[in-house]
Amino acid sequence: MASNSFGDFFRITTFGESHGPAIGVIIDGVPPGLTIDIDQIQVDLDRRRPGANDLTTPRKEADKLSVLSGIFETKTTGAAITITIQNKDPKSHHYDTLKNLYRPGHADFTWDKKYAHRDYRGGGRTSGRETAVRVAAGAIAKQLLATAGVNIYGHVTQIGTIKANSFDKCSIEDSPVRCGDPNASENMAASIRAARKDGDSLGGIVKCVAEQVPVGWGDPVFSKLDALLAGAMLSIGAVKGFEIGEGFSLASLRGSEANDEISPTGFLSNRMGGVLGGISNGEDIAVTLAVKPTSSIRKEQQTVTTDGKKTIVVVPGRHDPCICARVVPVAEAMMALVLADCFLKQRAIKG
Amino acid sequence: MASNSFGDFFRITTFGESHGPAIGVIIDGVPPGLTIDIDQIQVDLDRRRPGANDLTTPRKEADKLSVLSGIFETKTTGAAITITIQNKDPKSHHYDTLKNLYRPGHADFTWDKKYAHRDYRGGGRTSGRETAVRVAAGAIAKQLLATAGVNIYGHVTQIGTIKANSFDKCSIEDSPVRCGDPNASENMAASIRAARKDGDSLGGIVKCVAEQVPVGWGDPVFSKLDALLAGAMLSIGAVKGFEIGEGFSLASLRGSEANDEISPTGFLSNRMGGVLGGISNGEDIAVTLAVKPTSSIRKEQQTVTTDGKKTIVVVPGRHDPCICARVVPVAEAMMALVLADCFLKQRAIKG
Amino acid sequence: MASNSFGDFFRITTFGESHGPAIGVIIDGVPPGLTIDIDQIQVDLDRRRPGANDLTTPRKEADKLSVLSGIFETKTTGAAITITIQNKDPKSHHYDTLKNLYRPGHADFTWDKKYAHRDYRGGGRTSGRETAVRVAAGAIAKQLLATAGVNIYGHVTQIGTIKANSFDKCSIEDSPVRCGDPNASENMAASIRAARKDGDSLGGIVKCVAEQVPVGWGDPVFSKLDALLAGAMLSIGAVKGFEIGEGFSLASLRGSEANDEISPTGFLSNRMGGVLGGISNGEDIAVTLAVKPTSSIRKEQQTVTTDGKKTIVVVPGRHDPCICARVVPVAEAMMALVLADCFLKQRAIKG
Amino acid sequence: MASNSFGDFFRITTFGESHGPAIGVIIDGVPPGLTIDIDQIQVDLDRRRPGANDLTTPRKEADKLSVLSGIFETKTTGAAITITIQNKDPKSHHYDTLKNLYRPGHADFTWDKKYAHRDYRGGGRTSGRETAVRVAAGAIAKQLLATAGVNIYGHVTQIGTIKANSFDKCSIEDSPVRCGDPNASENMAASIRAARKDGDSLGGIVKCVAEQVPVGWGDPVFSKLDALLAGAMLSIGAVKGFEIGEGFSLASLRGSEANDEISPTGFLSNRMGGVLGGISNGEDIAVTLAVKPTSSIRKEQQTVTTDGKKTIVVVPGRHDPCICARVVPVAEAMMALVLADCFLKQRAIKG
Repeated sequence: MASNSFGDFFRITTFGESHGPAIGVIIDGVPPGLTIDIDQIQVDLDRRRPGANDLTTPRKEADKLSVLSGIFETKTTGAAITITIQNKDPKSHHYDTLKNLYRPGHADFTWDKKYAHRDYRGGGRTSGRETAVRVAAGAIAKQLLATAGVNIYGHVTQIGTIKANSFDKCSIEDSPVRCGDPNASENMAASIRAARKDGDSLGGIVKCVAEQVPVGWGDPVFSKLDALLAGAMLSIGAVKGFEIGEGFSLASLRGSEANDEISPTGFLSNRMGGVLGGISNGEDIAVTLAVKPTSSIRKEQQTVTTDGKKTIVVVPGRHDPCICARVVPVAEAMMALVLADCFLKQRAIKG
Repeated sequence: MASNSFGDFFRITTFGESHGPAIGVIIDGVPPGLTIDIDQIQVDLDRRRPGANDLTTPRKEADKLSVLSGIFETKTTGAAITITIQNKDPKSHHYDTLKNLYRPGHADFTWDKKYAHRDYRGGGRTSGRETAVRVAAGAIAKQLLATAGVNIYGHVTQIGTIKANSFDKCSIEDSPVRCGDPNASENMAASIRAARKDGDSLGGIVKCVAEQVPVGWGDPVFSKLDALLAGAMLSIGAVKGFEIGEGFSLASLRGSEANDEISPTGFLSNRMGGVLGGISNGEDIAVTLAVKPTSSIRKEQQTVTTDGKKTIVVVPGRHDPCICARVVPVAEAMMALVLADCFLKQRAIKG
Repeated sequence: MASNSFGDFFRITTFGESHGPAIGVIIDGVPPGLTIDIDQIQVDLDRRRPGANDLTTPRKEADKLSVLSGIFETKTTGAAITITIQNKDPKSHHYDTLKNLYRPGHADFTWDKKYAHRDYRGGGRTSGRETAVRVAAGAIAKQLLATAGVNIYGHVTQIGTIKANSFDKCSIEDSPVRCGDPNASENMAASIRAARKDGDSLGGIVKCVAEQVPVGWGDPVFSKLDALLAGAMLSIGAVKGFEIGEGFSLASLRGSEANDEISPTGFLSNRMGGVLGGISNGEDIAVTLAVKPTSSIRKEQQTVTTDGKKTIVVVPGRHDPCICARVVPVAEAMMALVLADCFLKQRAIKG
Repeated sequence: MASNSFGDFFRITTFGESHGPAIGVIIDGVPPGLTIDIDQIQVDLDRRRPGANDLTTPRKEADKLSVLSGIFETKTTGAAITITIQNKDPKSHHYDTLKNLYRPGHADFTWDKKYAHRDYRGGGRTSGRETAVRVAAGAIAKQLLATAGVNIYGHVTQIGTIKANSFDKCSIEDSPVRCGDPNASENMAASIRAARKDGDSLGGIVKCVAEQVPVGWGDPVFSKLDALLAGAMLSIGAVKGFEIGEGFSLASLRGSEANDEISPTGFLSNRMGGVLGGISNGEDIAVTLAVKPTSSIRKEQQTVTTDGKKTIVVVPGRHDPCICARVVPVAEAMMALVLADCFLKQRAIKG
């Protein structure tokens, strides 16, 4: 119900807007006594922050986190953990030109119609900026999951029309677009620079994987593990499609081709992406996300003013020509939050 | 948290297993004074029930509903509505051969590992049978939504490798596979019969659309309308992929090609599927679902016994060679449940 | 949010009205593999059912339970448990005279104003009849709690102006009013008969105790164990006051008199009723409830018709002259539901 | 489920510990377009803050609030509102002596047993300090409720053994103990000073009233308005008893004496405290709370060390000899939060 919260037992509530003084997150349900490596949280924040290389927005945000509660002498106390991040570089003056019109692809129009009162200085709550604190919370979830042996990673497999043809897990973080195919990676970077030069933007495909998830996480009816993951991933603004395992490819297979057969040493394939009947089956949990091209472009677009008149907009400001590489840590965080919640629920059930 | 519930304000809780005496649903939060057309609920149940034509399972279930509470003199009272459906034709004896092994593609394995105690007489809670009561609840949600002018319909656009090439909304329900392209429909039916003859099964693609949804439904952060729809749709057992609007196609477009431009009379395109920043924008809400081929097939498959020994299974019983046509009313129901919840929440916000 | 549900992880959803065909409950979150003694559930239902002796309503309800799901071969499967009870003896014709007026002390007036459509054939959802299925669910919670060593019992300490002066736990169930003081018990019974003869009713005081609750259940902020118990108990229609431990008596003590001092072998007193800072401290959890006199009386009372005209009502039908003895198993059930939920949450936290 | 959250639709999540850098609250579900008077929030914070007069702790906290999000140009935007308060005067060094023992009446013992890792520098999350941000959130709830005509106030009717004999609503805030009887008020103040001189503390009785609540708020089954209020009030650490309306006095009345009769112009009495069948009936919502004496006293008390050895403790630091006057704004806040939530839910139901 609470529209700023996610999860049940391991539950986060985020706050803050892109042009306010700070953003933050309250994390509820973290088991006590968990040693938290704050530096590791910062690593994930740095992976997401703008300005990391020339393929992202030149907007600079240090995104240094502060812990306000819940950790004492390096360990969680059972109290809610609170993390905040100051907004350093909002450049609100860019938005004066946007005050009285609706940017295509953004929530300006729908927010105004829903709430009838809008902070026009940028995306506010709907800005991708909010995802920074999801990443911070996700980093804590990852540390909890590590105690159960679970490891999560994401990578880019397509930017625009350029697709990866190979995959080397170790090379992901060396790639400026977080693609595991070094050759494709270079082509992807070039295509992003070309789109930016045109004042345009690109989308792509992101994959996210959880390794070593124990059998038995997730619920069999509404809270299926794949349903939770789908909801989590689509709550990332740019994500417009979701697949568990082979996803849409399964539609054209026969049952005998799609079913993962079982052997005494495990499943013989993983077309289902590690989930059977909503419950993890011990294989890698593997999801694929469609990321739309960034909405803010410098090309002229037709739109309307807030009082309904036809106009043309060229979105000013400093925007990502492609958001895919920065979506990777956000997707990892959302997957970690879902799995951490399932982990704790399964402990409640099994005792 | 409650793993058998769905929704916040307009909230359903389902119960019952495929081989128990009955299944049912409690519907919470239905506004009082709503006139309920019980026959119309039965229409949707009949659209989903098995045995409707030769392309579904020959298992017969009348699926006649009983209303136990919440409706008085044809109108809702504000009390929880309860609907039950008797299980008439379980044929449990088929399942004796399945007692000691795990069917590929089913939740047998994961349920056993999660709960360590399983009713082996079929899918139990993970059976598609549970979706019958979702359809009943969805039919009530549709009647609520109709008071806001919203209309929901679904259809099949692909079965196996056969794709629809045209779309006539009026012809959907005349098609045995609920496809809006009469020519493709015949080919789809033929391919299903062929697969069944081979003891095999087919998957496909289902689309679901909500027309005339007011602007402003859905929330901007975690409970984005598309996130809620994704979670809802992936909670249908056979659904393995989800797209809002153009979905995965957006990944290879540029921003200037993907953004829906705005005019004084509305959006100039609907690539985003009616949702901007998580909030409905007044266009059709349009989602696409990947449906995997039915797991139960008569072909030999490799699997293990419950004590971990290698074995071969040929799944007995009466199964759907393709579930897509029956997924349509279930997908409509899930969409209706999500939208009814958003409708009531928006009333709370706007007063 | 869901107004017909209670609890988070161990969560019940009830349905049904006093004059419908049946009432029921879905119990979510019961750990799998728990052996359920159905007869023991029936024992608690029999303790609550009307007509048990001459001090309750002469209305007869066998209150025989049916289990529709969730239990297989005597053990829970992890699926939602559903229990229903048929309504056998509604006598709706009594209520024709009540159709057009509001009974004092009942929810007739408020339901009509809230929902504007009312099933006038009795209390409907607000009838005490709904508590029967709470008792059934509570009996399952008790069986879960027994695995943790917890035992719950309740008793009456006051009826009208007659107070118990002694307490013998073993004599509670031998007393027709569930009072642990045999002498007071007789006087209480006599005062109930006197009130009934006058067409009037009595209230009283009920205590409920949980023994052997482990230290550490309940949360420190909003979901304090005593806060959860207070909410649970006040959700019983007739309960109008709640105390944890010494309750209102603590208001006139000094801190040095009120604090429970601690010794190496445990607390030296239990004025706090087993809860410190919202968390169980290992002592008995002890609560006290104020039960108002039954609202339905045969004495003339001033009221208004549904169209707002002054009138006099003499409530017809068969009503309890005092509900306290029947509140005891309901209070035990609500305590069990709260504690079962805390038990599972603590398992999630501690792993 | 989330142990740091309260409410469903109008929902708050609090964070922060008494000895951390700050405390705060995220408020979810506040309708957009509501004009917020920040000064009025500060007024309530000042009513609760320590050091207001010589009857409270000499600990000084300015308790100046900062708004981090959700309000733009004096009006709510629909985004979550975040309010923080810096901790200025923690004096952690006092707590070194408390590091290795459990203070009677505090959560030290139970926190340690529940979580096994404790920030020993004071009460942390269980400190009354957390209630400051409840008051801030409650002040916003009050401003929302004012748009529906609702007004909330609280007052003290008993301190230790001194009871108020009269009530003048206008004199409450002039009284140093927030008692509406000026004579009793002086005696109460004297008794508090006497207790403090003895190194001891006092409890008392607080009443809280909501005027002009529309008919129809609250739900008829589990989420009864009085059940929600009971849970809310018992979530205040010092509150150990709750009554709606006449509460425990009803136990010794007959039905004919207890029922509130109804006339065409309203109820003829309000023994039920404005709630019938869990739903507001248009009369004043009136609750009474038992407040235990402050746990921290300078008298010697027996306790144990964290390793289980017998010891004596004299609690150092600056503590309230009586907390009742400061409980008043907290109780008002909790009542406002409950009613704001019911208000919005009723809007959802009625449209």
